[in-house]
Amino acid sequence: MLDFTYHIPTKVVFGRNSLNALASLIREAGATHVLVHFGGQSAVKSGLIDKVKAQLEEAGVRYTLLGGVAPNPKVSLAREGVALCKREGVDFILAVGGGSVIDSAKCIALGAKMEEDVWNIFERKVRPSEALPIGSVLTIAAAGSEMAGGLVISNDELGLKRDYGTPALRPVFCIENPELTYTVSKWQTACGTVDILMHTFERYFTPTEDVDFTDELCEGLCRSVIKAGSIAYENPTDYEARATLMWASSLSQNDLMGMGRRADWATHQLEHDLSGMYDNVSHGAGLAVIFPAWCRYVMKHNIARFCRFAEKVWGISGEGLTQQQHAEKGVEAAQAYFVSLGMPKDLKAFGVDPDRLPEMAEKCSFNGQRTLGGLHTLNTEDMLHIYRLAYGD
Amino acid sequence: MLDFTYHIPTKVVFGRNSLNALASLIREAGATHVLVHFGGQSAVKSGLIDKVKAQLEEAGVRYTLLGGVAPNPKVSLAREGVALCKREGVDFILAVGGGSVIDSAKCIALGAKMEEDVWNIFERKVRPSEALPIGSVLTIAAAGSEMAGGLVISNDELGLKRDYGTPALRPVFCIENPELTYTVSKWQTACGTVDILMHTFERYFTPTEDVDFTDELCEGLCRSVIKAGSIAYENPTDYEARATLMWASSLSQNDLMGMGRRADWATHQLEHDLSGMYDNVSHGAGLAVIFPAWCRYVMKHNIARFCRFAEKVWGISGEGLTQQQHAEKGVEAAQAYFVSLGMPKDLKAFGVDPDRLPEMAEKCSFNGQRTLGGLHTLNTEDMLHIYRLAYGD
Repeated sequence: MLDFTYHIPTKVVFGRNSLNALASLIREAGATHVLVHFGGQSAVKSGLIDKVKAQLEEAGVRYTLLGGVAPNPKVSLAREGVALCKREGVDFILAVGGGSVIDSAKCIALGAKMEEDVWNIFERKVRPSEALPIGSVLTIAAAGSEMAGGLVISNDELGLKRDYGTPALRPVFCIENPELTYTVSKWQTACGTVDILMHTFERYFTPTEDVDFTDELCEGLCRSVIKAGSIAYENPTDYEARATLMWASSLSQNDLMGMGRRADWATHQLEHDLSGMYDNVSHGAGLAVIFPAWCRYVMKHNIARFCRFAEKVWGISGEGLTQQQHAEKGVEAAQAYFVSLGMPKDLKAFGVDPDRLPEMAEKCSFNGQRTLGGLHTLNTEDMLHIYRLAYGD
Repeated sequence: MLDFTYHIPTKVVFGRNSLNALASLIREAGATHVLVHFGGQSAVKSGLIDKVKAQLEEAGVRYTLLGGVAPNPKVSLAREGVALCKREGVDFILAVGGGSVIDSAKCIALGAKMEEDVWNIFERKVRPSEALPIGSVLTIAAAGSEMAGGLVISNDELGLKRDYGTPALRPVFCIENPELTYTVSKWQTACGTVDILMHTFERYFTPTEDVDFTDELCEGLCRSVIKAGSIAYENPTDYEARATLMWASSLSQNDLMGMGRRADWATHQLEHDLSGMYDNVSHGAGLAVIFPAWCRYVMKHNIARFCRFAEKVWGISGEGLTQQQHAEKGVEAAQAYFVSLGMPKDLKAFGVDPDRLPEMAEKCSFNGQRTLGGLHTLNTEDMLHIYRLAYGD
């Protein structure tokens, strides 16, 4: 087990009545002027924004609305938010939505404390550790951004998707009412389930030996999410399934599942450049296609771990199989599960142009300036191999 | 799943070099005068207290030492600490030790903010929500008090052991170096392992249905602790086993394993009055004796849960067994495991006087003023039955 620091101060208020806690949470946070950040009109039409406004009025604070966050959130909208915060003296950002809205809020929270343009962070020109405080009302179980200190944002002009993290970005509170996710579409439910699993799988495929306890937590989370994902996909108003997905989304990405070991974020990084170049690719769907290809490319470097994955996560016995066969059965099971949730099997399904794969690999490796991976290190050529495997050649 | 609030702000610094973080943690906490609270002379002789003092000097704060905490910590020593804090203007308490030291520190932290005697809290005459801030350097993996908001304290004059909890008692930080537990005796290692398991079992035996995710986390923690406990018992300097026990002690009692459901603390409450009356009973050893008796007394009220316990925690298949037989096998496995760690099998082994069991049950039920249990409710008569079963009649 590697040395670690664990510090997750986010207060989670979970359950059917959790939105009623918003006024007191805002007061506890000492906010005076709140930017309410959200996505499309559905949050308005459903009455959720009205409920949020009523709570803010009860808390006696000023508020300003900024909607319009789309999946794969853009730095252009965040820049608008930054200007608005500076102009209006906003001192707290409330994200009402899923991971895209929370990440956009985090980008604004960083930018509001900077003189220069916020994109400088994602080009690694500055590394700020200050941000406005953030809270969230979660409406999609997927990204786990609600308890995490990181964000992912896209630059539409450059066709890039980049991440950044600092403890200051960990939200002060998160309100989680599973009922708010009843209206999440089948497709988004599936994408969210994949995202939760991938946050856990990528911590699970570690080069660090002897962290059985963390393995056990990861495997338990995954088995529960696999069951709950199928149930919520078939029956969107199953409270227990929605609750499991919601709570698991937070725990899958708040660091708990990675304590004491290195992770391998290659699948996420490979996906970021896929959806950075192809805006029609949902993050979860992209992961569902990249992950099996990544597994097949790297599994020979730690076959025992892939066998444990097959056995403990997917319940596949290795009896009568070679290690290679056993490991492959686990990957097949993961892919079959994703397909059972309506996820595509290959990049062709997204209309990806195979001639653009080298460009994708170049972007992902920052033009050869970085490698990826913890379980096994990938260079630009490896990345291209994985994209080609994922393409379905 | 029941509604819940999850808020665990304790910062854990974990690993071989974690003590080096103490100076900066003390500075972050804004302390100016620290009460260093500890147990016997072993912490002094081992050089640990000197290392702590060096860190406090590096942090530039005043400090005062108060040692002498014994297992089943006493309110009498805590009262001394309270007087000392008030007299010296202490504003931070650093517990260097295990659960007994941390709980004694929590008692002092509460008392230092009160006018009246601190025991009033445990007689439920006052319910304070204020306390001095606490940090800890953990030296025994057992109680999990290092991330929890509760404490247990004994009143030597009255022969009572009582608990109290408030979020203000959750420590600000905890330093966890598994190497500091290498010198923990076999007996204490066994008692600690039992305590960690029991914190989880008592959350696991819930009357709340459909919390599969929390079940999975509990079962995974228990399987890891069962393995690690045996390894550390045989080889006290096995780093990975000690690390698993230490991290699991924190997670078993910080609320994570009980999210979304009621727990059943009957075994802990029954043990408190056992060790309250018999000072030779170590808390973990008392639990090891009470738990199987509790199981056998209540299992008929939720036989399916005891079958799951047998299967998932102890790996016992139910094939060819009745539910009753399957459940009993799980309890036998738990008891056999405890015995394999040198724990006693019955109350006789502690020299308990069987004629005093009715008095014990009366104390435990506050003279009939309270019932115990979540899975099944116990009155005074039920408590006596369980004590008699545990006695080994």
